[in-house]
Amino acid sequence: MKKFVNAIDQLIPQSLAGFAAAHADIVELGAEGKFVRRRRLQPGKVALVSGGGSGHEPLHAGFVGRGMLDAACPGQVFTSPTPDQMAEAAAAVDTGAGVLYIVKNYEGDVMNFEMAAEMAAGRVARVLTDDDVAVEKSTWSTGRRGVAGTLVVERIVGAAAEAGADLEACRALGQRVNDATRSIGVALTSCTVPAAGKPTFELGEAEMEFGVGIHGEPGRRRVPLAGATEIAREMAAAICTDFAGRRGPALLLVNGFGGTPAIELYLMYDELRRAFEAEGFAVARSLVGSYVTSLEMAGCSATLTLLDDQSTALWDAPVHTAALRWGA
Amino acid sequence: MKKFVNAIDQLIPQSLAGFAAAHADIVELGAEGKFVRRRRLQPGKVALVSGGGSGHEPLHAGFVGRGMLDAACPGQVFTSPTPDQMAEAAAAVDTGAGVLYIVKNYEGDVMNFEMAAEMAAGRVARVLTDDDVAVEKSTWSTGRRGVAGTLVVERIVGAAAEAGADLEACRALGQRVNDATRSIGVALTSCTVPAAGKPTFELGEAEMEFGVGIHGEPGRRRVPLAGATEIAREMAAAICTDFAGRRGPALLLVNGFGGTPAIELYLMYDELRRAFEAEGFAVARSLVGSYVTSLEMAGCSATLTLLDDQSTALWDAPVHTAALRWGA
Repeated sequence: MKKFVNAIDQLIPQSLAGFAAAHADIVELGAEGKFVRRRRLQPGKVALVSGGGSGHEPLHAGFVGRGMLDAACPGQVFTSPTPDQMAEAAAAVDTGAGVLYIVKNYEGDVMNFEMAAEMAAGRVARVLTDDDVAVEKSTWSTGRRGVAGTLVVERIVGAAAEAGADLEACRALGQRVNDATRSIGVALTSCTVPAAGKPTFELGEAEMEFGVGIHGEPGRRRVPLAGATEIAREMAAAICTDFAGRRGPALLLVNGFGGTPAIELYLMYDELRRAFEAEGFAVARSLVGSYVTSLEMAGCSATLTLLDDQSTALWDAPVHTAALRWGA
Repeated sequence: MKKFVNAIDQLIPQSLAGFAAAHADIVELGAEGKFVRRRRLQPGKVALVSGGGSGHEPLHAGFVGRGMLDAACPGQVFTSPTPDQMAEAAAAVDTGAGVLYIVKNYEGDVMNFEMAAEMAAGRVARVLTDDDVAVEKSTWSTGRRGVAGTLVVERIVGAAAEAGADLEACRALGQRVNDATRSIGVALTSCTVPAAGKPTFELGEAEMEFGVGIHGEPGRRRVPLAGATEIAREMAAAICTDFAGRRGPALLLVNGFGGTPAIELYLMYDELRRAFEAEGFAVARSLVGSYVTSLEMAGCSATLTLLDDQSTALWDAPVHTAALRWGA
């Protein structure tokens, strides 16, 4: 294993310290580094709190800031944060309008966020993301997994909260955006969890994992490595089939898993955009980059979110976080 | 080799098409895809043109936009763009105030930009970046290599041009920023050039290349893989020694080469910041991310730029490109 690290158990705390120092204009660390929070809260705004295992950066801490999250709780690599992290984060950023937890559908995250919700003094609601169409049940999830579509939910609901939407409106909107979102991923290599010290899985030199999860967990099947056009068509087909007859304007997010260079991601964006437009979607908004990663895994995912006028305007509204930034 | 690609010779053109489509609000492609240019030029502004081999994305096309470059010329992977690309780009974005070429110090780039300058109808000046302290002569360079410090030059001069600085002022500022900038890189793995199909170099499981170039070319020496603290201290020492007695407020850029996860980059930022501050620098501005890459190489570089009031204000001024964005 070749990584920039000292003691493994200090990797996440030290990385968080670096993150907070590099982005001190936007965030600060909570007590004992249990969470990352917005430096300046907006009183009366619904607080958005997310979190999950580390190793998916910039998700979630990179999305803390104006127009997106109020706090993020990082667990150890690929390990759920604890209920007390989530409860303390919620208490720190709740200014009276309640807290919306945005939770990716993994058993550990779901259970711990439920326990955190029971510990909460104020009002709490939850949106569960489960955008991955690859499999209906996985290593760590019952039902579909929550993957890169979580970013889209955090961004759109974040903008709504900033604009004054109340807790129930934020929850309902998050649910609606999740319901309008589908993702599928492909891995060309494994990642290596630092504490394990060796690759999570083995892939032959001419193989890829179709439908891979963001922890390197198995997807639909292992197939021979194909050309980009063929890979993109199969990814698009998986999403289009799942959308059944639903078509319309959409946001296309082409997400790198960490080890895939930008030139390949933009090539895949070109392929995926063509494939979705041939199927009757109109790509109205785009995002390309490594936003929901699996450490250094080579691979990418496609996420398609159906947009309406409201969600388009919210997507476009100003956002000011470490990893996503636009508008004034 | 496992990459998302169809025919190798179509990788860059298709990737550029995807890039231009994904960022159509900011950029457009020049004729035959020879360059990427700002969609909206600002008449009377000095035009900034850069370029170089592909494989370093987001450099340079990701830095085209308001407050940074007017055009970028991408060559094939790790191959200089041709003089006609550079000349056509300059002609397309020169609105009468002249063109400043920002050129990384590699023999091919230098020669081709010189030929392009001779072809130019309007006024042309050049800034050569050579911030890499690792070696004085390298595989493809006489003198020091231009690496991630190029981003800092492009950003600060880009802001000055936007504010109305004339061609000579932009050139002199660029030279001054380059002279105030030092970089050093470390590789943990090789990259694989698509057309070659195999790793550029071999590194043992317990080795790293200290002082590596951004094409995987050799650095100072091959050394045993060390802990992050020790690596960071040696990187900082190389830069501090080269700055001799110069100290003061500085910008610290911790740059990933492509295959290193964000958690490790932020950990290295934490280490490097401490190391530079212990040496008497005050880290006043920070940037952490994979901005000047070597395809999927694992590794990172540190860049330190001494700041004065003028360069700090220019760094902070609004920038709106695909890869760097802040301000209104």
